[in-house]
Amino acid sequence: MQLMKKARESASFDSFELTGLMHGGRREDVVTQRRAAFERVEKVVGTRDISKLPRCYANLSREDQYEEGLRWGKAAFEDGIKYQHDFFASTTPRYALANSNPFGMNAIMVEPTIEFMASDDEQKAKWLPLTKSGKIVGAYVQTELGHGTFVRGIETSATWDATSDEFIIHSPTISSTKFWPGALGFSCTHIVLVARLLLGSVDHGPHFFIVQVRSLEEGKPIPGIKLGDIGMKMSYNGTCNGFASFDKVRIPRTNMLMGHAKVHRNGNYERTGRPELAYSTLLLVRGIIVRGMVPNVATIMNTDYPLAVGFQLAQSVTIATRYSTVREQGLGPNSLGRTEVAIMSYASQHFRILTLIAKSYAIVFASKAWDRDYEKLREEQDTGDHASLPYFHALTAGLKAWSTQTAADGAEDARKCCGGQGYLMISGLPEIVASVTATATFEGENYVLWQQVGRYLFKCLDHLKQDKPIDSRLAYLATAYQESLDSTIGEFDATASASCSAFGSDFLQRGAQLSIYRHRTTRLTLSVYEKLRSSTKTPIEAWNEHMMSIISAARAHTEYIAVIFFTERVKDLPASTSSALRAVLTRLCSLFALSNIINPQSIDAISFVEDGYFSLAQLDTIRSLVDDLLEQLLPDAVALTDAWDFTDASLCSALGMYDGNVYENLMRWINQLPINKRAWEESEGVYQPGWKKWVEPLLQAKL
Amino acid sequence: MQLMKKARESASFDSFELTGLMHGGRREDVVTQRRAAFERVEKVVGTRDISKLPRCYANLSREDQYEEGLRWGKAAFEDGIKYQHDFFASTTPRYALANSNPFGMNAIMVEPTIEFMASDDEQKAKWLPLTKSGKIVGAYVQTELGHGTFVRGIETSATWDATSDEFIIHSPTISSTKFWPGALGFSCTHIVLVARLLLGSVDHGPHFFIVQVRSLEEGKPIPGIKLGDIGMKMSYNGTCNGFASFDKVRIPRTNMLMGHAKVHRNGNYERTGRPELAYSTLLLVRGIIVRGMVPNVATIMNTDYPLAVGFQLAQSVTIATRYSTVREQGLGPNSLGRTEVAIMSYASQHFRILTLIAKSYAIVFASKAWDRDYEKLREEQDTGDHASLPYFHALTAGLKAWSTQTAADGAEDARKCCGGQGYLMISGLPEIVASVTATATFEGENYVLWQQVGRYLFKCLDHLKQDKPIDSRLAYLATAYQESLDSTIGEFDATASASCSAFGSDFLQRGAQLSIYRHRTTRLTLSVYEKLRSSTKTPIEAWNEHMMSIISAARAHTEYIAVIFFTERVKDLPASTSSALRAVLTRLCSLFALSNIINPQSIDAISFVEDGYFSLAQLDTIRSLVDDLLEQLLPDAVALTDAWDFTDASLCSALGMYDGNVYENLMRWINQLPINKRAWEESEGVYQPGWKKWVEPLLQAKL
Repeated sequence: MQLMKKARESASFDSFELTGLMHGGRREDVVTQRRAAFERVEKVVGTRDISKLPRCYANLSREDQYEEGLRWGKAAFEDGIKYQHDFFASTTPRYALANSNPFGMNAIMVEPTIEFMASDDEQKAKWLPLTKSGKIVGAYVQTELGHGTFVRGIETSATWDATSDEFIIHSPTISSTKFWPGALGFSCTHIVLVARLLLGSVDHGPHFFIVQVRSLEEGKPIPGIKLGDIGMKMSYNGTCNGFASFDKVRIPRTNMLMGHAKVHRNGNYERTGRPELAYSTLLLVRGIIVRGMVPNVATIMNTDYPLAVGFQLAQSVTIATRYSTVREQGLGPNSLGRTEVAIMSYASQHFRILTLIAKSYAIVFASKAWDRDYEKLREEQDTGDHASLPYFHALTAGLKAWSTQTAADGAEDARKCCGGQGYLMISGLPEIVASVTATATFEGENYVLWQQVGRYLFKCLDHLKQDKPIDSRLAYLATAYQESLDSTIGEFDATASASCSAFGSDFLQRGAQLSIYRHRTTRLTLSVYEKLRSSTKTPIEAWNEHMMSIISAARAHTEYIAVIFFTERVKDLPASTSSALRAVLTRLCSLFALSNIINPQSIDAISFVEDGYFSLAQLDTIRSLVDDLLEQLLPDAVALTDAWDFTDASLCSALGMYDGNVYENLMRWINQLPINKRAWEESEGVYQPGWKKWVEPLLQAKL
Repeated sequence: MQLMKKARESASFDSFELTGLMHGGRREDVVTQRRAAFERVEKVVGTRDISKLPRCYANLSREDQYEEGLRWGKAAFEDGIKYQHDFFASTTPRYALANSNPFGMNAIMVEPTIEFMASDDEQKAKWLPLTKSGKIVGAYVQTELGHGTFVRGIETSATWDATSDEFIIHSPTISSTKFWPGALGFSCTHIVLVARLLLGSVDHGPHFFIVQVRSLEEGKPIPGIKLGDIGMKMSYNGTCNGFASFDKVRIPRTNMLMGHAKVHRNGNYERTGRPELAYSTLLLVRGIIVRGMVPNVATIMNTDYPLAVGFQLAQSVTIATRYSTVREQGLGPNSLGRTEVAIMSYASQHFRILTLIAKSYAIVFASKAWDRDYEKLREEQDTGDHASLPYFHALTAGLKAWSTQTAADGAEDARKCCGGQGYLMISGLPEIVASVTATATFEGENYVLWQQVGRYLFKCLDHLKQDKPIDSRLAYLATAYQESLDSTIGEFDATASASCSAFGSDFLQRGAQLSIYRHRTTRLTLSVYEKLRSSTKTPIEAWNEHMMSIISAARAHTEYIAVIFFTERVKDLPASTSSALRAVLTRLCSLFALSNIINPQSIDAISFVEDGYFSLAQLDTIRSLVDDLLEQLLPDAVALTDAWDFTDASLCSALGMYDGNVYENLMRWINQLPINKRAWEESEGVYQPGWKKWVEPLLQAKL
């Protein structure tokens, strides 16, 4: 604990100032309100007293884990209504995404869908008050057993019956079974269903319907609907991700969400509203995921909304930082010292922890910028201007893929930084890692999303080729394209590589960092574009041939955007920000940008250097600048993680508690494990069911 | 299922020939015996009928999971004794490492320790028959709460008491609590304990002792010993990884393992035997881990021993390959097709799956070569020649770090290749991933091991500098060192970079591939060596400053060795090997070597290209050769995974069954989940404990 105290005292800045910046913006009272909400909910669910083994580490069967999710979900939902806040709308009081509890779907999926897809008057007025007050429990039901990312493949049908003026919902095949939706198994009463709209012989493709699936009184499934749980998952076991199949279930015609397409009483189909807006639900969901990784600074800083938070990467790094500060192991580098030292003092640990901290902040600031751009998009759309939608779609897809992969890989690396102890469930890390890694897959598998980013970039280049304008935020691409035209060879030639002009401490300059990232994305994008457009193969074959390069280009573009967002944020800090905090954030930003060049972690890792853009001497310079940054930031590591303001209960980790008293915290919880108490209290230290049935017979067997 | 059938028929070689090569060597009957053992054990534990939901996917509390491990462990142990085989000595019938079941420690840790550390006559004669017959259940107890990798820091003490001629075993602090050993919690009766030997005022450091910890009759802990479980982990929950603390527990002096050091009745301490051999236990354990990743081909091919297998990476890739073959999603690359296609046909999926298959074979062949070298080491040591030990230690450390990281990252990527379905426990993948990822941490944390490899390489260079000989297997380093001396600048200069001389299809040549890997390791090793040796800092600071570069050099060396081992194996296939199989393995080997250059996945990923060794055109050539290899290997993907000969029960995966009937297999198991059966059979589809206690009150709350 002395080590932890010293590490805290060594900080060069006030961690609470950073807490305010992240959670409260200019309003410190939000930080206080937020803390109060956590305290209330943690008391209700019984985790506030951290000397007690949290229930989630006792024996939890599938049923127990589901009940634990119901308990947390109800406490958080009711606290939000009672105290009028939405601290727990996007994320749970343990910072998991809110779809990990059965009552979280209303706010994050069902209400946004109704907002965007329902007809303005009746439908919203009918359904939204019910979901917001918890009079009905919703689920968003799209994915099928056989159909995930490819929404157009959905098979569940909604056939209009002219006689009764109803839709008949039906699951024609086993692969059409709805599969995966959160809360679907046993918790929800109503669902927003995605099903093919069939009018006579015409298939109008996927549309949205509201379907009641259980009676409100007894909870029994509506006749014709089979509902159940899909079993244990790596995480998210607090909710009943479920399946549903429909055997000709009838719903009123008016239960179709008719904001953008109508079916009239006479069976006529009419497109109405703004079909472009149909995109927005999915965008919103992806935006929440970006935010789910880290706090949504934007909301808090620009509006009165309390903060919707997630911070799972930051949680795992907080635990790893604290553990690395107090865990002593070995005699220092190459065992050359005389006494054991804290593992944080080993360069590899130091490098991993600090770069992970930098990444968690990078995601924060990207999320903040996304929020800002999303606000702008909505304002433009309100005036009928949808021109930014393609840009925004690509931005969202890219940030989703980038942030989820960065967070998933980073959380796992933070876990590994804790050695064997990080493998214990009571470290809290396995649950965080398992929860984060889901996001790399759901709501748009990352490899699919990268290609959507690539498609957008190539469309921009098509426009440039045709002298059409492109989104102003892609100006860098236009410039690069023009330069390639101006060059002697006429078309972009990947082999005619440029050299990086930065030297020495230049690399710490914003401009130099941005130009490195810009060089990479333009090189990769223009090069693969030329290959695609000049290919003699069919478009489908050409795309497949260059898919890995397309993904590289998309990632390079997105990482460039992430560096822009981080550097902008650091440049535009509130005037009141202390110089100490400015200095720390500036270092973090450089560490993020530069360490990604020398130690990239992705399938296309060589893309910064493969064209000889850097000399080996330049790379060595970058390495030594990174070393300097690491050294400067080391005293701030604990403060940078304290600033997230995680309660011990929300971390739920015997390794990562604020006090740093690791070994006692570990043993205190272990002594309370049910299997131990049962053996010690009932049978003098023997776990009888194991001993009698299995060990004793083996010892006595005559083989 | 049609898709699976077609994929199987498309193979260019006979998968059973490869099965024979891996499991039976030249003896086909071993394959048959092995299959029979799996069938027997799977019937005993009740998993052979794959239409039934495996018990491990029903509601498993901590206690249930432990019982499941006892069940499997007993069945496997007894089958081995009854039918005289050791198919399940290193790995379980589900291919987890054998320390994941409570009866597995005898064979993999306790017996080897006794073999190597006990005095020749009495001690071995006393203990080995007991462990081999299961008359006692052992555990290997080294790690403490505060002391992992750094064995010298161990605090548990064994103080000799002259009067009674006993050792007094004691845990002086909370951090000295023994923590983590498999089977320690509630299953073992005896342990091999690592404790500091204290004779009078002299601390002789860690030694081995045998301590009985429970009575054989009732299983009660010996007075003074506190034993318990450390709770749920990410995996390995079939065993009771435990903790133990000792309150002045007395054992006879003769329970110290005295093969290499003796304590006489008069309290005299004497070093005996071969202290160098003290290394060997740890080496052996690490060797088993390398083998645990993939089948131990060596044992089967060179001896009569049946195969000890693990194959966890191969298991995950088998599941992913089968699922990718039958899962149809989307309209093909860039959605340009007309009908849905299997996801294997997307280039990114195709790339990931095939390179993972190549990696799993690379680990096999490395494991085989390790076994061969280990045999040689033991033979040399039997004649008193220990000169190879440092080489072998570095080889083992490097292969352990490389194979575990490759397998852990690869298994997780294979899991992600299965999208959302891979997140379900019944996919089998989460358990495999969680189990594999442990190996990157235990028995030598990888970052620590890399540095041990580096230390060895630098010692070799020290020797060369002093004109002393080095191990002949490091001849490449001697050559490179000599060249650096011969060069005009006298010392190795990292900026004076060479260029790769290969062009076009040269890159498919063994020689070209090896020279690329050799160039990288010599460049990195010599460069960081010069920096270390010329540093003006203290040795400890210099090491820490260059730690990341040291790790890069160590990895580069180990990957070079892995490529050597793979290419050698392909070159030296048995004469009877068909030309079809030769062709496939040659392609796999090239795919492994080349894809690692263009798509490396490690923290030092830029090390192949950072020095400008390749032109961009050369890299593009490698890319297109990789594309060609992928295309050639695509029809063989299913056959390459079938060849592992996994039973459906051992995969335990609803996604990865041999028949490819994924959706029906998934729903069949899901319909048998206890939570569903309970709701459907007892309450018309309502899960009452959830509904009554949590959902209904929320619906009815007045907030």
